[in-house]
Amino acid sequence: MAIHHLEPQTYYYTFGPHEPALSLRSGDTIVAETRDAYGYDAQRNPLPETMKQRAPGTALRESNPLVGPIYVEEARAGDLLAVHIRRIRLTRNFALSRQNSYFGCLTGEAPGRRLLYNPPVPLVWYEWQLDRDRHVGILDMPKSRLQRVEVPLQPFIGSIGVAPRFGRVEMTLTPGEYGGNMDCPDTAEGTTLYLPVWVDGAYLLFGDVHARQGDGELNGVALEVTAEITLDIEVRKGGEAEWPRLEDATHIMVAGSTRPLDDCVRVAQMELLRWLVDEYGFQREEAWQLNAQVGTMRIGNFVDPCYTVVAKFPKAYLP
Amino acid sequence: MAIHHLEPQTYYYTFGPHEPALSLRSGDTIVAETRDAYGYDAQRNPLPETMKQRAPGTALRESNPLVGPIYVEEARAGDLLAVHIRRIRLTRNFALSRQNSYFGCLTGEAPGRRLLYNPPVPLVWYEWQLDRDRHVGILDMPKSRLQRVEVPLQPFIGSIGVAPRFGRVEMTLTPGEYGGNMDCPDTAEGTTLYLPVWVDGAYLLFGDVHARQGDGELNGVALEVTAEITLDIEVRKGGEAEWPRLEDATHIMVAGSTRPLDDCVRVAQMELLRWLVDEYGFQREEAWQLNAQVGTMRIGNFVDPCYTVVAKFPKAYLP
Amino acid sequence: MAIHHLEPQTYYYTFGPHEPALSLRSGDTIVAETRDAYGYDAQRNPLPETMKQRAPGTALRESNPLVGPIYVEEARAGDLLAVHIRRIRLTRNFALSRQNSYFGCLTGEAPGRRLLYNPPVPLVWYEWQLDRDRHVGILDMPKSRLQRVEVPLQPFIGSIGVAPRFGRVEMTLTPGEYGGNMDCPDTAEGTTLYLPVWVDGAYLLFGDVHARQGDGELNGVALEVTAEITLDIEVRKGGEAEWPRLEDATHIMVAGSTRPLDDCVRVAQMELLRWLVDEYGFQREEAWQLNAQVGTMRIGNFVDPCYTVVAKFPKAYLP
Amino acid sequence: MAIHHLEPQTYYYTFGPHEPALSLRSGDTIVAETRDAYGYDAQRNPLPETMKQRAPGTALRESNPLVGPIYVEEARAGDLLAVHIRRIRLTRNFALSRQNSYFGCLTGEAPGRRLLYNPPVPLVWYEWQLDRDRHVGILDMPKSRLQRVEVPLQPFIGSIGVAPRFGRVEMTLTPGEYGGNMDCPDTAEGTTLYLPVWVDGAYLLFGDVHARQGDGELNGVALEVTAEITLDIEVRKGGEAEWPRLEDATHIMVAGSTRPLDDCVRVAQMELLRWLVDEYGFQREEAWQLNAQVGTMRIGNFVDPCYTVVAKFPKAYLP
Repeated sequence: MAIHHLEPQTYYYTFGPHEPALSLRSGDTIVAETRDAYGYDAQRNPLPETMKQRAPGTALRESNPLVGPIYVEEARAGDLLAVHIRRIRLTRNFALSRQNSYFGCLTGEAPGRRLLYNPPVPLVWYEWQLDRDRHVGILDMPKSRLQRVEVPLQPFIGSIGVAPRFGRVEMTLTPGEYGGNMDCPDTAEGTTLYLPVWVDGAYLLFGDVHARQGDGELNGVALEVTAEITLDIEVRKGGEAEWPRLEDATHIMVAGSTRPLDDCVRVAQMELLRWLVDEYGFQREEAWQLNAQVGTMRIGNFVDPCYTVVAKFPKAYLP
Repeated sequence: MAIHHLEPQTYYYTFGPHEPALSLRSGDTIVAETRDAYGYDAQRNPLPETMKQRAPGTALRESNPLVGPIYVEEARAGDLLAVHIRRIRLTRNFALSRQNSYFGCLTGEAPGRRLLYNPPVPLVWYEWQLDRDRHVGILDMPKSRLQRVEVPLQPFIGSIGVAPRFGRVEMTLTPGEYGGNMDCPDTAEGTTLYLPVWVDGAYLLFGDVHARQGDGELNGVALEVTAEITLDIEVRKGGEAEWPRLEDATHIMVAGSTRPLDDCVRVAQMELLRWLVDEYGFQREEAWQLNAQVGTMRIGNFVDPCYTVVAKFPKAYLP
Repeated sequence: MAIHHLEPQTYYYTFGPHEPALSLRSGDTIVAETRDAYGYDAQRNPLPETMKQRAPGTALRESNPLVGPIYVEEARAGDLLAVHIRRIRLTRNFALSRQNSYFGCLTGEAPGRRLLYNPPVPLVWYEWQLDRDRHVGILDMPKSRLQRVEVPLQPFIGSIGVAPRFGRVEMTLTPGEYGGNMDCPDTAEGTTLYLPVWVDGAYLLFGDVHARQGDGELNGVALEVTAEITLDIEVRKGGEAEWPRLEDATHIMVAGSTRPLDDCVRVAQMELLRWLVDEYGFQREEAWQLNAQVGTMRIGNFVDPCYTVVAKFPKAYLP
Repeated sequence: MAIHHLEPQTYYYTFGPHEPALSLRSGDTIVAETRDAYGYDAQRNPLPETMKQRAPGTALRESNPLVGPIYVEEARAGDLLAVHIRRIRLTRNFALSRQNSYFGCLTGEAPGRRLLYNPPVPLVWYEWQLDRDRHVGILDMPKSRLQRVEVPLQPFIGSIGVAPRFGRVEMTLTPGEYGGNMDCPDTAEGTTLYLPVWVDGAYLLFGDVHARQGDGELNGVALEVTAEITLDIEVRKGGEAEWPRLEDATHIMVAGSTRPLDDCVRVAQMELLRWLVDEYGFQREEAWQLNAQVGTMRIGNFVDPCYTVVAKFPKAYLP
């Protein structure tokens, strides 16, 4: 039940079975400070080139530099890695956001690229002030009738995942069956995330904290911040999950990530149904009927290259 | 400001410029009792064949028999029809639901039909008891560990719409730019629905009340009930909406309906953005940035033949 | 076995059980000259307003004015209407084409509309010369290195269909289970089209001839021409088709039309498989194996609002 | 201009910058015999476990064991790797095919998985005889009226690709911007494939030859064979391609691979348009107009997890 304070020397831009930054045991706790999606730290220092994971002769997609990987000694392919998000402590007084030229569901991002006769959507930066005492974010909107807006903060981890299935290596920009850049506000303080282990050791990576985000992360960028994260790690033997499962005070949830959104729903709902039947004693038709009337869904992110939908079932209706 | 009590003689299975059941003026109120999605009334009497709209030599899709059409005298193509849902009073003590063989996002419904080597998903009926005093629905689940469940009622109008664009006639099973079978719980008591008028007179039809429904209406069927509905009707000149807009105590919303879900999101979000800019004085980039951080979405229905996503913006952040 | 020469008084912009222009019997032949997709005739005269089908208070989508409807006396819902395309004779020496601002798969057309910061794709007209003796079309391209191009003509009927299922009325811009604006080059001279009859009388409408078109009709507009069309009409009792079937000298085919393209493929392939099993004596697995190795597909049109994929099986491999 | 005969010691199940099997120079030729998609060789020997690439603690997706990687010395990220397919010589007298339970566009494969109340599509093996003298494949269909069918062979390379962008590692089951398992019959003898180089050295892998395949590879499996492949390798400096380009005697082509099919078309057509403008001197609107009338498309594969569409432009219309 050790507590490990990790000081990252290298930040990773891909999920995969990379050289571990730390090895720990089931039951241990890890504490680490993460950089924001652009690599800035709490003092707005950029990530030094020497701290970026870099394979020779390969371009990086420099989004979401992550901390880790954490090698979990007892984790074997087929297990579940339970990651309890004990604390997300924001470590600076501003968040960065922006709109991008080819990123986000309405900008003509890569696979849906269209004929462009004109300059693309302009890149615009936004800086939100964070009042951490009052737990609000503040945006100045000088060009709008409403000159300034104040919104409650709802911090969560944007990217957290393990090494993908079948020896793949995926960008930290992408979500999948390994978790990853799911960008759903449900990976917040108090939530337990159950990640299927695909590679012995699990190889957990995390970072990319958001101070707040709307459904779909429509413009592709949330309130990007630095944070100190505290995670309790535990291996569960004999899990059967094929997609990330989540549990908080009120819901059990599944995050399904693919393209298009339609299949995200199918992936998440089929896994949720399996969970209700296998672990909570529902007969399948009855579970399906009940879920159709009380279940909810959240479109986590709808941003190139892969989308995430979270299917939610209220714990009030569990036996 | 007349109040009209409508006793339907004919129930319609298509949206279109049919023979009006009633003509009224902007400012009037209409009260009517609707049948459930299967045509049953409050006493479980089926809909008489003679009361079904029937063109010679045409098969009907007998889902969602609707009340109307209401011809609104001042309504001209290009206007908005504001429909304020003043009251939805449930008129019986049970709701019907079921799972269908080829209906709902996980059953191999029509356009996504797959190779079937075996009998399809079986048709199973469910009857929920409604305790209208305690405002809950009760389902017995004899085959599950949780033998019985009680859930709060959240009644709403499943199908409400006007004659479609370009002289089309559409099934009452389908949503579109004319409203229709949007099946989103947001068309509840207290909500005002703004429908674009596509044909002079508007030709409003409504019915198919649900006592409750989860996101996506996954199995294709909610808690289907009868109800007495009270609507205040008003024509707004010079609206620019291309998709149904909604407003309740906390949010302004747009319902976008098409296939696949991805394009439902795009349709709804583009219309919402236009609304924020045109009527609330937001500069476009700033609106987009703010909405990306505070907006939410609901997957209304994900059922053949067309899906609905509702994009929501909190009124707390309107000027 | 009468031959009917139809001189249209009204042109229709919707498929549906409209007032018939002509009633005929199974076995009869119809000859009619069609206008182009924009309503121009062979002498470039526009379609007079008085000849346009027009419901009061409704905007028209003025694409593809069609000839008909033809009421076929023996046709009953559930039958097949066999339409043998005996002749397509082009009646002028030019074809019109263009690129449109919001039409075609790469322009941000309606349901996939994106954020637009700039003027849309510009509307550009193209006029092709048709050399009907040499059977080629000629395009001048003054701005390109290749100044002029000459391509063989491959005339076909762009829009041909019957009244849709369930009493619906659909635009002549749209394809579906009723045929319609399938825009696939396979509806050419010599092809027999088998349309499911959904409404007694069938109500056949046709027009919108293309002198040539590539796969997908990418820009939304082919070589739009006028033509004199000769069709042999025959009712087949007891057909089981749910989608348009086609047959030419070399292939049997099914046209599946919906959104997205993925489901067009599924719809067409499932119907083709059923056809092979029911009428040609294939065992299902063996049909599926063979079709997977010898079948081809054509993306007919990939243009808002609905797409068409044609699944083709070579007649060389039929018993 | 050396000729290298490669005797593989290890077969790879992922594309990525793995330990090279061979290093060569631009201008060289490589000859290698490939195993079939299941790992069988020409004598039907299975692939020994010791010859499978295997990372510790990781499950393999044992489809398409490939030969390579070939490290190309002059290849730098940003270049094009021209791979001329000089020869594909089939090396056995049978091909294996099958239908799979959850693989192929109509079987409920992974991301589109549906409610299953019954056993899935059964796994059925098919063995085709290959008559290499007469260049035909022969299938016995004992359960069908047509007892036996003979089809011409059209051999091509199913999987050929380089290390993916951004340091990713992808399964040999998947196509993408790196080429990969495109399964399009156009990668045949005589074709030149231009692959964008994403990682210095390129890391070419290839195999999975098909003796023939229909459009879409509907059931997920073609006529799987072994073959001896001869490739001429050349580095082109300063290419600008973002997707694989192909050229044969009659067409220039682009292979776009993603999900859903709609975006495959967009990706491929946008790249083709860029090619026509940048290298062949077409003005963009004119290229678009011409391509819309003479271009064709092939649905290469429509199989989980990613699909491929090939956009084709006839060389007859190039300057």
